[in-house]
Amino acid sequence: MAVKHGKQTWSPGKTPVIVSTGTVTGPTEAQGPLGKWFDHQIPGSAKTGGQNSFEDEEKQMMLMAAYAALQKASKTPEDVDLYIAGDLLNQIITSGYSASDLGIPYLGIYGACSTAAEGLVLSTAFIDAGFANLVLTAAASHNSTAERQYRYPTEYGAFRKPYTQWTVTGAGAALLAPAGRGAAITYVTVGIVKDLGISDPLNMGAAMAPAAAATLNQHFFDTGRKPADYDLIVTGDLGRHGHELLLELTAQTGFDLNPNSRDCGAMIYDPEKQDVHSGGSGAAASAVVTYGYLYSEMREHRLKRVLLCGTGALHSPTSVMQGNSIPGIAHAVSLEWQEG
Amino acid sequence: MAVKHGKQTWSPGKTPVIVSTGTVTGPTEAQGPLGKWFDHQIPGSAKTGGQNSFEDEEKQMMLMAAYAALQKASKTPEDVDLYIAGDLLNQIITSGYSASDLGIPYLGIYGACSTAAEGLVLSTAFIDAGFANLVLTAAASHNSTAERQYRYPTEYGAFRKPYTQWTVTGAGAALLAPAGRGAAITYVTVGIVKDLGISDPLNMGAAMAPAAAATLNQHFFDTGRKPADYDLIVTGDLGRHGHELLLELTAQTGFDLNPNSRDCGAMIYDPEKQDVHSGGSGAAASAVVTYGYLYSEMREHRLKRVLLCGTGALHSPTSVMQGNSIPGIAHAVSLEWQEG
Repeated sequence: MAVKHGKQTWSPGKTPVIVSTGTVTGPTEAQGPLGKWFDHQIPGSAKTGGQNSFEDEEKQMMLMAAYAALQKASKTPEDVDLYIAGDLLNQIITSGYSASDLGIPYLGIYGACSTAAEGLVLSTAFIDAGFANLVLTAAASHNSTAERQYRYPTEYGAFRKPYTQWTVTGAGAALLAPAGRGAAITYVTVGIVKDLGISDPLNMGAAMAPAAAATLNQHFFDTGRKPADYDLIVTGDLGRHGHELLLELTAQTGFDLNPNSRDCGAMIYDPEKQDVHSGGSGAAASAVVTYGYLYSEMREHRLKRVLLCGTGALHSPTSVMQGNSIPGIAHAVSLEWQEG
Repeated sequence: MAVKHGKQTWSPGKTPVIVSTGTVTGPTEAQGPLGKWFDHQIPGSAKTGGQNSFEDEEKQMMLMAAYAALQKASKTPEDVDLYIAGDLLNQIITSGYSASDLGIPYLGIYGACSTAAEGLVLSTAFIDAGFANLVLTAAASHNSTAERQYRYPTEYGAFRKPYTQWTVTGAGAALLAPAGRGAAITYVTVGIVKDLGISDPLNMGAAMAPAAAATLNQHFFDTGRKPADYDLIVTGDLGRHGHELLLELTAQTGFDLNPNSRDCGAMIYDPEKQDVHSGGSGAAASAVVTYGYLYSEMREHRLKRVLLCGTGALHSPTSVMQGNSIPGIAHAVSLEWQEG
């Protein structure tokens, strides 16, 4: 049985464990500073990738990530009780079509760039309730599908502002079990939507930073933990500008995140060599950084306790055109390595 | 602790109960045969509704449904641990904006027209795991927002085929608790995506019927129950043509659904008096029929045991234009009235 702490945080009764992960990215991400921690690379061009469309390529990435996680645990889709997935495309078709291929009982979620964290929250509940022995959860995004859906087709060559983020092409999957060697989920803090009136869809970091600050503050209040209790607090994905805003906002409530917090969007690209402005975004950003690089660092015992704070901007092109502001959300998941 | 039965079905350890519901519809639904069982009616016109857009009106409906459910249980949003919601709009903005207004920790889901059933599955897991004392789950759709997003703007006056369904304008919400008087959730069967190659987005009933048949067959196999063990098996929403196909498909596997199965989409409109072709569709269809009419029938002891089989078509306008077929999914939830 889970225990509720404070207003928004739960610790599961039996602690679910991420026993394996799978990550796939495009070439830009593979050439970035974390490239060597990703399992597979796709060509990043629909034609050379052998797929009919960028959307098909995105689905293929999600399947590759799912199978990579399964293979590392010597499992097949038949062994898995539930598949929980989400992505950025309208009607989350990447997830739906990948579920069709996998044939695992499927639940679709939408949390924008907080999808990976939301998937971990749901997986935790299902395993803790005894619903599932194995849960597979995945998140994906693709620069060429997301940019044209949310902003402009890449062919337009539209100017980008300094605080603009770059949608990550990638997919990450995690396989969770009730026990074992891996990253155990010790706390989850489910976010409340925060809307401070930001209406520029090119400035998502500013729209999401208040939600990240609110969830992190609440996590520390609810658990009694301090930022220093974590080896790393990682947001995903505010970008560099949004992350600076987060540091200011949390400082106002007495929490200093400067020493040990980073942002997945800022980590995945090299700001000197890669023209990605404020960093990466997209549901894949926190998924591939957490399931690729951070999971490996935990396995190598270079990080023991990590707090993932997945952040999402819950707008749509329609809501922006109708003049509505951009609501933000953030879910926090405390990961602690255990040798099983 | 939940118990797994067979491949896809679970019975929760402590049985969550829908202790109250709230339903809101537009005028067409209110004038239909089930109109008197819905709590509130909106004008169904953005201008007269006092909202800026149909999208705003849809959000307002979801909030009205949520507050109706809360009020009947003498609860406020502050009493609720989790809000789980989904809708048909891109990036489920109806759910995100309603969550922003409610201020309850929020998890967004996407299951197309199976959203209400998916919300009940998740609520069951969260309550069974001890994560939540009270969970509010909601689903919404709006004819004027969905038709123009999925098909044609209504102003086009496009011809509609006989098997076309009519997107329901409405919202339904359910408040779940670990115990009490209401509709207890005794089994959930989580669906596997089925894709038999239907690619006509105007024929969703045919795309979803194989998924409904697969989930119902699996539910009967997993639980050992027969169709006759239910007072009513209700799909939502295949429409009349899709429901006929379901009866054929389940007959092939030896289950006769003829005596006691109906479809929410077929029930909500009067085929003689209302020009809705094959019946209603949309995430609201099964939500308002189940939480309005069926919940009331159970409370009045005219129905004791109901199996809700929420059905969803997991395509998008992009996937259809790219020539992909329409994957279907269905989740089954067994509801049994208890006096608490």
